[in-house]
Amino acid sequence: GIAKVDHHRELRNGYPEVIYCEGKQLEHIQHIIVEMLKRNNNILATRANPEVYEAVKEVCEDAVYHKLARIITIKRKEIQLPETYISVVTGGTSDIPVAEEAAITAEFLGNRVERIYDVGVAGLHRLLGNLDRVTGAKVIIAVAGMEGALASVVGGLVDKPVLAVPTSVGYGANFNGLSALLCMLNSCASGVAVMNIDNGFGAGYMASMINKL
Amino acid sequence: GIAKVDHHRELRNGYPEVIYCEGKQLEHIQHIIVEMLKRNNNILATRANPEVYEAVKEVCEDAVYHKLARIITIKRKEIQLPETYISVVTGGTSDIPVAEEAAITAEFLGNRVERIYDVGVAGLHRLLGNLDRVTGAKVIIAVAGMEGALASVVGGLVDKPVLAVPTSVGYGANFNGLSALLCMLNSCASGVAVMNIDNGFGAGYMASMINKL
Amino acid sequence: GIAKVDHHRELRNGYPEVIYCEGKQLEHIQHIIVEMLKRNNNILATRANPEVYEAVKEVCEDAVYHKLARIITIKRKEIQLPETYISVVTGGTSDIPVAEEAAITAEFLGNRVERIYDVGVAGLHRLLGNLDRVTGAKVIIAVAGMEGALASVVGGLVDKPVLAVPTSVGYGANFNGLSALLCMLNSCASGVAVMNIDNGFGAGYMASMINKL
Amino acid sequence: GIAKVDHHRELRNGYPEVIYCEGKQLEHIQHIIVEMLKRNNNILATRANPEVYEAVKEVCEDAVYHKLARIITIKRKEIQLPETYISVVTGGTSDIPVAEEAAITAEFLGNRVERIYDVGVAGLHRLLGNLDRVTGAKVIIAVAGMEGALASVVGGLVDKPVLAVPTSVGYGANFNGLSALLCMLNSCASGVAVMNIDNGFGAGYMASMINKL
Amino acid sequence: GIAKVDHHRELRNGYPEVIYCEGKQLEHIQHIIVEMLKRNNNILATRANPEVYEAVKEVCEDAVYHKLARIITIKRKEIQLPETYISVVTGGTSDIPVAEEAAITAEFLGNRVERIYDVGVAGLHRLLGNLDRVTGAKVIIAVAGMEGALASVVGGLVDKPVLAVPTSVGYGANFNGLSALLCMLNSCASGVAVMNIDNGFGAGYMASMINKL
Amino acid sequence: GIAKVDHHRELRNGYPEVIYCEGKQLEHIQHIIVEMLKRNNNILATRANPEVYEAVKEVCEDAVYHKLARIITIKRKEIQLPETYISVVTGGTSDIPVAEEAAITAEFLGNRVERIYDVGVAGLHRLLGNLDRVTGAKVIIAVAGMEGALASVVGGLVDKPVLAVPTSVGYGANFNGLSALLCMLNSCASGVAVMNIDNGFGAGYMASMINKL
Amino acid sequence: GIAKVDHHRELRNGYPEVIYCEGKQLEHIQHIIVEMLKRNNNILATRANPEVYEAVKEVCEDAVYHKLARIITIKRKEIQLPETYISVVTGGTSDIPVAEEAAITAEFLGNRVERIYDVGVAGLHRLLGNLDRVTGAKVIIAVAGMEGALASVVGGLVDKPVLAVPTSVGYGANFNGLSALLCMLNSCASGVAVMNIDNGFGAGYMASMINKL
Amino acid sequence: GIAKVDHHRELRNGYPEVIYCEGKQLEHIQHIIVEMLKRNNNILATRANPEVYEAVKEVCEDAVYHKLARIITIKRKEIQLPETYISVVTGGTSDIPVAEEAAITAEFLGNRVERIYDVGVAGLHRLLGNLDRVTGAKVIIAVAGMEGALASVVGGLVDKPVLAVPTSVGYGANFNGLSALLCMLNSCASGVAVMNIDNGFGAGYMASMINKL
Ligand SMILES: Nc1ncnc2c1ncn2[C@@H]1O[C@H](COP(=O)(O)O)[C@@H](O)[C@H]1O
Ligand SMILES: Nc1ncnc2c1ncn2[C@@H]1O[C@H](COP(=O)(O)O)[C@@H](O)[C@H]1O
Ligand SMILES: Nc1ncnc2c1ncn2[C@@H]1O[C@H](COP(=O)(O)O)[C@@H](O)[C@H]1O
Ligand SMILES: Nc1ncnc2c1ncn2[C@@H]1O[C@H](COP(=O)(O)O)[C@@H](O)[C@H]1O
Ligand SMILES: [Mg+2]
Ligand SMILES: [Mg+2]
Ligand SMILES: [Mg+2]
Ligand SMILES: [Mg+2]
Ligand SMILES: [Mg+2]
Ligand SMILES: [Mg+2]
Ligand SMILES: [Mg+2]
Ligand SMILES: [Mg+2]
Repeated sequence: GIAKVDHHRELRNGYPEVIYCEGKQLEHIQHIIVEMLKRNNNILATRANPEVYEAVKEVCEDAVYHKLARIITIKRKEIQLPETYISVVTGGTSDIPVAEEAAITAEFLGNRVERIYDVGVAGLHRLLGNLDRVTGAKVIIAVAGMEGALASVVGGLVDKPVLAVPTSVGYGANFNGLSALLCMLNSCASGVAVMNIDNGFGAGYMASMINKL
Repeated sequence: GIAKVDHHRELRNGYPEVIYCEGKQLEHIQHIIVEMLKRNNNILATRANPEVYEAVKEVCEDAVYHKLARIITIKRKEIQLPETYISVVTGGTSDIPVAEEAAITAEFLGNRVERIYDVGVAGLHRLLGNLDRVTGAKVIIAVAGMEGALASVVGGLVDKPVLAVPTSVGYGANFNGLSALLCMLNSCASGVAVMNIDNGFGAGYMASMINKL
Repeated sequence: GIAKVDHHRELRNGYPEVIYCEGKQLEHIQHIIVEMLKRNNNILATRANPEVYEAVKEVCEDAVYHKLARIITIKRKEIQLPETYISVVTGGTSDIPVAEEAAITAEFLGNRVERIYDVGVAGLHRLLGNLDRVTGAKVIIAVAGMEGALASVVGGLVDKPVLAVPTSVGYGANFNGLSALLCMLNSCASGVAVMNIDNGFGAGYMASMINKL
Repeated sequence: GIAKVDHHRELRNGYPEVIYCEGKQLEHIQHIIVEMLKRNNNILATRANPEVYEAVKEVCEDAVYHKLARIITIKRKEIQLPETYISVVTGGTSDIPVAEEAAITAEFLGNRVERIYDVGVAGLHRLLGNLDRVTGAKVIIAVAGMEGALASVVGGLVDKPVLAVPTSVGYGANFNGLSALLCMLNSCASGVAVMNIDNGFGAGYMASMINKL
Repeated sequence: GIAKVDHHRELRNGYPEVIYCEGKQLEHIQHIIVEMLKRNNNILATRANPEVYEAVKEVCEDAVYHKLARIITIKRKEIQLPETYISVVTGGTSDIPVAEEAAITAEFLGNRVERIYDVGVAGLHRLLGNLDRVTGAKVIIAVAGMEGALASVVGGLVDKPVLAVPTSVGYGANFNGLSALLCMLNSCASGVAVMNIDNGFGAGYMASMINKL
Repeated sequence: GIAKVDHHRELRNGYPEVIYCEGKQLEHIQHIIVEMLKRNNNILATRANPEVYEAVKEVCEDAVYHKLARIITIKRKEIQLPETYISVVTGGTSDIPVAEEAAITAEFLGNRVERIYDVGVAGLHRLLGNLDRVTGAKVIIAVAGMEGALASVVGGLVDKPVLAVPTSVGYGANFNGLSALLCMLNSCASGVAVMNIDNGFGAGYMASMINKL
Repeated sequence: GIAKVDHHRELRNGYPEVIYCEGKQLEHIQHIIVEMLKRNNNILATRANPEVYEAVKEVCEDAVYHKLARIITIKRKEIQLPETYISVVTGGTSDIPVAEEAAITAEFLGNRVERIYDVGVAGLHRLLGNLDRVTGAKVIIAVAGMEGALASVVGGLVDKPVLAVPTSVGYGANFNGLSALLCMLNSCASGVAVMNIDNGFGAGYMASMINKL
Repeated sequence: GIAKVDHHRELRNGYPEVIYCEGKQLEHIQHIIVEMLKRNNNILATRANPEVYEAVKEVCEDAVYHKLARIITIKRKEIQLPETYISVVTGGTSDIPVAEEAAITAEFLGNRVERIYDVGVAGLHRLLGNLDRVTGAKVIIAVAGMEGALASVVGGLVDKPVLAVPTSVGYGANFNGLSALLCMLNSCASGVAVMNIDNGFGAGYMASMINKL
């Protein structure tokens, strides 16, 4: 087999096996899934378009597709949920696919998730009107494109760790997410750490780690 | 003389004559001032350090130095003040020199200016607690470094034109003001236009234009 | 509903409700329009391609499509026009779509607009021959790609606030609008503020704000 | 007073009041310290050079200077330590000032800190030989310049959240920390979030938040 | 003929004639191949998609297509293999096409190649478990995208020259391979030199040169 | 009509009227051509794909299409040729389309052109073997992508003005022509000036100007 | 001797020998001058500060220092002047040092030079009022910082080749001359070619080449 | 002790212990040297200014300073020289410090080195006149700033591996070595691999590795 599937990680940390589908050929993905299924682990496949899902279903009938999040999940083991929850906030509606990637990832890793979408800084009353659900979380994922100011505003209002996910939403001088990325890295609010542009998966994974501490 | 002093502009728009001192030799600045004084206009010299001021005082005794703003002003004509005012807000205390450059410029051009400093988004209550003074203005100058989110938040709260001035305040991935610049250019709030990094003068000048419409 | 439609803004400032269509799914756009129509406000949808228009027409028969500007407008309330006008100038013919986005936005917000297109600096006589229509405006929108010098030249000739819109028109070292953006940010003419690359909507919106002061 | 000291934050989250000294004038820093001392809170001043320390000592005799970390601390209240600890690892010896900024910050906020310095990827046995002290932590701060690969390697070996701090250490194509920043943002190891270049303080602060969850 | 085929090189160094197919028209490629075949040399065509292969087969029946590597080879002369070998390692499975470009190039130039794929730093045990095959080589090609840390880790473990090939694998702040490129250029391990992003051919060619010294 | 066709230029300098077709709609191009034809001038249309040519032929039967150069020419007036000539050199075969844009432009403006293609620095003997044809020109256009070293080498060998045209040929760290652009701007050979990336037209136009001095 | 002085060039093209002094040690410069003097050629030393001049005077008494241009000249042979002249225009007074580097270089190479300084686009009447002296030249050097629009405006007004020299004059988003460089590379006026940022010498040298054609 | 000195490496590969002095405090350097001396190994300290040398001499009398290369060497063991040699070529005289860092490093690691300096592409006859000494080497180090074309030209002429070292020599659009770096990465000559900007040490180290294969 071409890929060295990483058995170690699953054993070590109770997490599912993960496949990043972008740029992989359908047969390779099928092959990897088949190998993983032998070990009876939960499986999470990210950046999966509908064709990938069709291919995966051929080798695993009960695979579930989360279209907006572009995620495929295969469940083999139950995971216990902690009491605490993760909240996922977005600046606009266009940021929702990335937010869903984070939310579905976190849920599949065994977490309660609270979604608070479209509460960007251009209309602050929307965020302030939902502040309780934000502050009640153990850790917050803030997803925003364009100027990415949401992370700073949330970080300033809330006394919890904030994982900021810049998105490539926008045009022109957003330079495919650079504007939001730089904005978030330079946040003057303490307690904000940054993920790669559009990396909802990474945010959901790290938030799960923190939520289970 | 080496510089072609631009008589046109003053006549055309009632504005003072302006010198940008950075990188100019002291004798050149003195020469330019002397030429300008002959026409009896108001004079504004920006980016002037204390040495420049000493040199200017030699040729014009009543020149006034605004240290924080690095501006020298020479007044020869009175300008009438409109009723309306310009408010200047900053994210942090380190942004104050740029804000003062804007404020002194606007005042010298004949405007009332309201200063609301150190009200950045990491502590939103500070801005919300001063909102009346912000919204009461005819035009707002928002000065911020690091992530520059202040412009978006102000733009979202207020129904007035906002001139956003990114500053080079910060370090690392602020890339000398690039982070704030990109943030402000990508503001999801409508009614925000952007000046060059650290360009307090330009903001004060344009705000004056708008305030006098 | 997925999107938190921002009732606040319309009430607060008499402006229409605005939708940014790029990257939104047709059903989402239809849903948002339906919600907005219940409040009987004027509606402006930007970055709308013909498919979006078809979808909108299904839920709102009298929606109007401005093809060049990629804008859909729905009118429910009359807005009074001020006496003054906004002029929109472009460097070339390829900048016209962005200029139209600005012009249609400004008109829909209740402004008279004067269009002066294809008067770029490579043939200065074209601008000089139309100077009266430019200087007669209360505020000017200057739209240009490539080297973006138009904003500086207009700013130098005219004693009115100039909103500069860099466009992504060009190739090679224009880096998708970066050249025009930097040029405009560094304008040596006073009274020039800059919008995001290709952001005609933002310029039209801000110009309307200023024109109604 | 020029600065709006943020009383809110301290009350809200039990954290000290924090000053970023870079670019601030000595009198301003003294003034801010004096104001803060009235509220009897713990105080942390970052990016403080020896001159700043001399100025602070004039207004507060028991201020302590942490030279390598460029931090001044003033203690007024005792903070209880949790059982768990934070580990701080660095790639090289030149990264130690940033690491110390993180470590001192975390300790002053009431955390045990384990320092594991100079264990970069060019000599992997150094990291592997210290793995127990790394994995025993509740959260890990990984500080590295140049190629910044340490964060990925630690993230791959350890099942704990990693806060990655790129440093500006290096030359040439490190572009003042950009290489390490991009490397860390693109980490193929899950569970890594990134701070601004050289932002030891932010890492210490966020790690403390997580350690106390 | 439009292209000046470079006879010189083949004579001088025993290497095959090489065509870079990207952006060339099919007829041009056919023409060049026909010219080259007259001189009875080995021929290597890189960046060849299936259409190119079809066109080449029309003028040369025994051309062989290496699909993953996007390489076409035509063999006319036998080359003697040295005892020593080149090892090619990759961080992930998505880096394999670039690695294969390097491996096929090196093999066609007359070298034994050892492939060690999918051993990236996020799961270090995979690399450590294959260390013998890596260290046994005379020269190593390390292919990795995203953060590109593999080159540093290999360089630190092994006392052989490492040719690092950054790939464009990844998304967001990988900026099409920039992250891996900068990471590799700043390697703190000695004995690492860097090729262009995705330049498997160049790495295979240079490794062959070194392996035959 | 939407476009202000620039009659001035033709009259002033004996040059043809020029249209840049990229991004223009077919009807607009047809309209502009029709207007120009009324004045009986020579016409040059650049960046014209085959569809554009079809549209132009509908309004002007004798329009000629130069496919490789993507240029359409319409001849109405004869231009006298000077004795001297322009030479156009390229590094590789992939640079030929840009070179042809320059060559066809120069020829249509009334110049003799000598083409010396595929003589890049990786095989210096090819350039040295053609040196006479290069040095015999009055002005040289050097077209190269990737590292763009050709301009420096030609500039060093020849005592004539060199117009360097970087091309976007290459991949990876060529960043769409940035590598060749920077290389050419930093040429250590005197007598080299640089055009925009892929700007064959501009080079042909300027070379014609110089050739006719 | 450490440097291989290039005798070739002088013989070949009648130009002086040239030294770039920046970053060279005083003794090295003295050594190179002494070697050159033996061949009795004219010598031009650029980027020479006063200390360099002192050192050069020690080995050559009649060396002349052009302070503003930072150039040292040593004359041994007379050069005949052509009838035609080169004009050098600048946008502002801060661009004069670069302009003087160009002017002194061109004069020393045997050209008449017309200086037209401080005629930037923010006050177009200054350029229009001097147009005759600009258009009368055989070739024009346009020197400008900030937005660098001067080159486009001159290129549009004049039917002569324009060598555009971007300067690093400005601040913030001028990014040390990048704004002017990109502006000039993207000039929509035909007949403009670009030199490196602040490269007055190169412009003077190339203009001389063209002026003597 | 603060630094974990890496005993491993020396034992493993017969190379000296290496210290990178930039940014390290004098006492730390002294401490590291003293520790290293106990093991009786050869020691190489790079980026050492004269003050560092004074400090090192205090703890090791026979330390030798190579001023141009900014290297300190301490010899304790003899290394046998292979018959083959490394050649180091530079484009200009300003590149010599980086070249010397490479040459001294290689010599201290036990290699014969041939220096061929100031043979850049602007005067090709200088390189062609020294070709034998270049091609006679087993591996070549090509050091060049500005456009960095030397590496491509050498790579094209010579059938040996070329290690290209871009330098930060130049100004303006060289962007501190970026131009040479990109040029070298995009070399169209095969057999060229690239080091970090100004990384003479790395080139010398890797060349030594290759020379001893
Ligand atoms: N959307 C994603 N973004 C970033 N990293 C991911 C993503 N999905 C999966 N990964 C990481 O990539 C690894 C799998 O890579 P691969 O072996 O190429 O499928 C997983 O272990 C995850 O750590
Ligand atoms: N073309 C545009 N460019 C920039 N901002 C826009 C544009 N069109 C709409 N907007 C802004 O985007 C907001 C709507 O975003 P959304 O809720 O995502 O549709 C509006 O309130 C406007 O402020
Ligand atoms: N995939 C590749 N990447 C980089 N350089 C290549 C590649 N394939 C071929 N080359 C080089 O490009 C040259 C051929 O270019 P061309 O004449 O345009 O086909 C060869 O001599 C190689 O040195
Ligand atoms: N000038 C240099 N450039 C790049 N790497 C260097 C240089 N000098 C030393 N090194 C590397 O840095 C390591 C020593 O780092 P340190 O322990 O911080 O002194 C050595 O093992 C070398 O691999
Ligand atoms: Mg917070
Ligand atoms: Mg607003
Ligand atoms: Mg104006
Ligand atoms: Mg981990
Ligand atoms: Mg090694
Ligand atoms: Mg020459
Ligand atoms: Mg012209
Ligand atoms: Mg070669």
